[in-house]
Amino acid sequence: MIARKIADQMGRGSMIRKMFEEGNRLKALYGADQVYDFSLGNPDLEPPRAVQEALCRLVLDKRPGLHSYMSNAGHESVRQAVAARYSRLSGLPVTAGQVCMTVGAAGALNSVLKALLDPGDEVILLAPFFFEYLSYIDNHGGVAVEVPCDRDTLLPDLAAIRQALTPKTKAIIINSPNNPSGVIYPEWLLRALDDLLQKQDHVITVLSDEPYAELAYDGNIVPSTLACLRQVVVCTSWSKTLSLPGERIGCLIVSPRCQESDRLIQAAVYCNRVLGYVNAPALFQRVIEEAIDAKVDISLYEKRRDMLAEVLLAAGFKLQKPQGGLYLFPHSPGDDDVAFAAACARHRVLLVPGSGFHFQGYVRLCFAVKESVIENSVPAFQAIAREYGLKG
Amino acid sequence: MIARKIADQMGRGSMIRKMFEEGNRLKALYGADQVYDFSLGNPDLEPPRAVQEALCRLVLDKRPGLHSYMSNAGHESVRQAVAARYSRLSGLPVTAGQVCMTVGAAGALNSVLKALLDPGDEVILLAPFFFEYLSYIDNHGGVAVEVPCDRDTLLPDLAAIRQALTPKTKAIIINSPNNPSGVIYPEWLLRALDDLLQKQDHVITVLSDEPYAELAYDGNIVPSTLACLRQVVVCTSWSKTLSLPGERIGCLIVSPRCQESDRLIQAAVYCNRVLGYVNAPALFQRVIEEAIDAKVDISLYEKRRDMLAEVLLAAGFKLQKPQGGLYLFPHSPGDDDVAFAAACARHRVLLVPGSGFHFQGYVRLCFAVKESVIENSVPAFQAIAREYGLKG
Repeated sequence: MIARKIADQMGRGSMIRKMFEEGNRLKALYGADQVYDFSLGNPDLEPPRAVQEALCRLVLDKRPGLHSYMSNAGHESVRQAVAARYSRLSGLPVTAGQVCMTVGAAGALNSVLKALLDPGDEVILLAPFFFEYLSYIDNHGGVAVEVPCDRDTLLPDLAAIRQALTPKTKAIIINSPNNPSGVIYPEWLLRALDDLLQKQDHVITVLSDEPYAELAYDGNIVPSTLACLRQVVVCTSWSKTLSLPGERIGCLIVSPRCQESDRLIQAAVYCNRVLGYVNAPALFQRVIEEAIDAKVDISLYEKRRDMLAEVLLAAGFKLQKPQGGLYLFPHSPGDDDVAFAAACARHRVLLVPGSGFHFQGYVRLCFAVKESVIENSVPAFQAIAREYGLKG
Repeated sequence: MIARKIADQMGRGSMIRKMFEEGNRLKALYGADQVYDFSLGNPDLEPPRAVQEALCRLVLDKRPGLHSYMSNAGHESVRQAVAARYSRLSGLPVTAGQVCMTVGAAGALNSVLKALLDPGDEVILLAPFFFEYLSYIDNHGGVAVEVPCDRDTLLPDLAAIRQALTPKTKAIIINSPNNPSGVIYPEWLLRALDDLLQKQDHVITVLSDEPYAELAYDGNIVPSTLACLRQVVVCTSWSKTLSLPGERIGCLIVSPRCQESDRLIQAAVYCNRVLGYVNAPALFQRVIEEAIDAKVDISLYEKRRDMLAEVLLAAGFKLQKPQGGLYLFPHSPGDDDVAFAAACARHRVLLVPGSGFHFQGYVRLCFAVKESVIENSVPAFQAIAREYGLKG
């Protein structure tokens, strides 16, 4: 009775899902505080004060129509606030008409992909990548073309991207700071990618999935994709910036420098409607408007990144310290990352094999966890290191 | 650059959209209070007190994790509350495991359709129907098969449905109280539909889109689809019951009597994830839990229904007074409903031709408008009646 494709996909399962189930089994067996769970990507900070205050103001205010339908693109004043912010960040004149509020970054990506893809059109993904991109492309009849990043720098490999381009290449999804690798694409690389794409004889649109853009450490600033790329649609959310992942509030912004940019934003808004998202949740649109420049205290994430990196480095793991995002992405000792993740689970350490992101030989650990989890995990990592013969 | 299918669909536009644009033009020209806009389906009552209070409690409480991710199916306690309510309504033992919280009823319909449809599978629609069903079916490679309702009673025509069944029929979408006709499907009809479908030699699933289920007038009660149909998935939202359309909060409930019901709910939850909805908005899940038995004061809608019906009947329109929902669906004088709607717009009355719901010869008027709009529209309807030679 279930659609054959869905039955197949469910049968395969996802690595994160399997880790989640293994985690539940271990937690039931040993107690939650005896399991060191770095497998999830759930920001654990509470939303910043500006969000809490905006929420209280809005609901106590009881302003009429707060929960009503609005234009499918979202409230005009909310889109103006978003446009003003991205104008400041990019130096480009972004207007409300180029913004559509969406059901998270996932809603943004799906709306733009549906707007762009004819059956069989190709979308380039840069491995390692967030595995849901595969579903999002498939939802709209597209074909994913995987291009591995450089195995040393974990940065996109422009020569490999050039080789992967075909007349059917319609889009490329980029994600910086990257989930899972934590690398920030430097400005020169974004500009070189722009050059490469603009030289092709048909339009290739960059979808920049950038929910981690405000989570950069060591004083790094994530370069503005709107500033560096001409044919770009920003697809983002406030899930990480404001710790609101459950509220499904995001947006898409079609660069004013895109070919036929008016038509593209109209198509994306149309797809936002017909895909059944209809509009971004109304109350949180207003929250975004009121807290547009707020963000969580990222020094707390930076501290945890440093703590967990230190634990891993001390135990002998090979690790490039991430510049942004919420994840460490060390080499997996022994190269078989799936076997390594299973070994870690035996030590009650939960993490996700790089294969889950189509990039073998690495594992992903989320450091958005309580500091006590990191502290208490030290003996487990030492035991894992001994098992794998690492030298701390 | 835009996908060909999307470009085609956008070119055709929707009748509601055209009416919306004409309305904006007229409002700019004459002033908003000089235009009688019955074209939208935006519930205009504010949410009931229980919702306002729950919202205030929740945001002042600052409970940790209120805005976090949760299981894709939604918070367990929220699903328990929904299950308990539908158990009471249906007399069936509905459990939390059969409930998935969704991004509105649209999110529910899309998740279930994707879970069910192989390419080319057929879905029966009963005209008149909410036109977005066509997009939702097409999103997942299905083929819509339209079956007109009885032109007198506006009820589903079982003989016509039987004739439309083929080996590829995978589902049928029902909607009671109906948008646009306002009819409530009686219990005998639901049971007869169940009999008809159960007699087929393959499984045909009923998707019951029922966001208007609490909006029944004259003491009517909408029969429980879970009680009357065995192979049914309820797809609904609190958009109308609690006046929260902008918040995109709904759910789907797979009947425990469905074939392979566990597998079907798992597939729907999976599709809720891969379609990019991810989960229903977190805060409003909690609001639903706390206000599960609340509803707007429907006597206000009933009063407006009566007022507008009286205006139309006095002017000489042919009208079956709706038992539920938010719409009147009178015959269009002259049978060409598109021409009639255009004529009404010249009198600054905005309504939607039945053709927009694939049912010619009728027009839809939403009575969820201020009473003053109804009162002030009387001369316009009288003028329209004179133009069309109606006898009041």
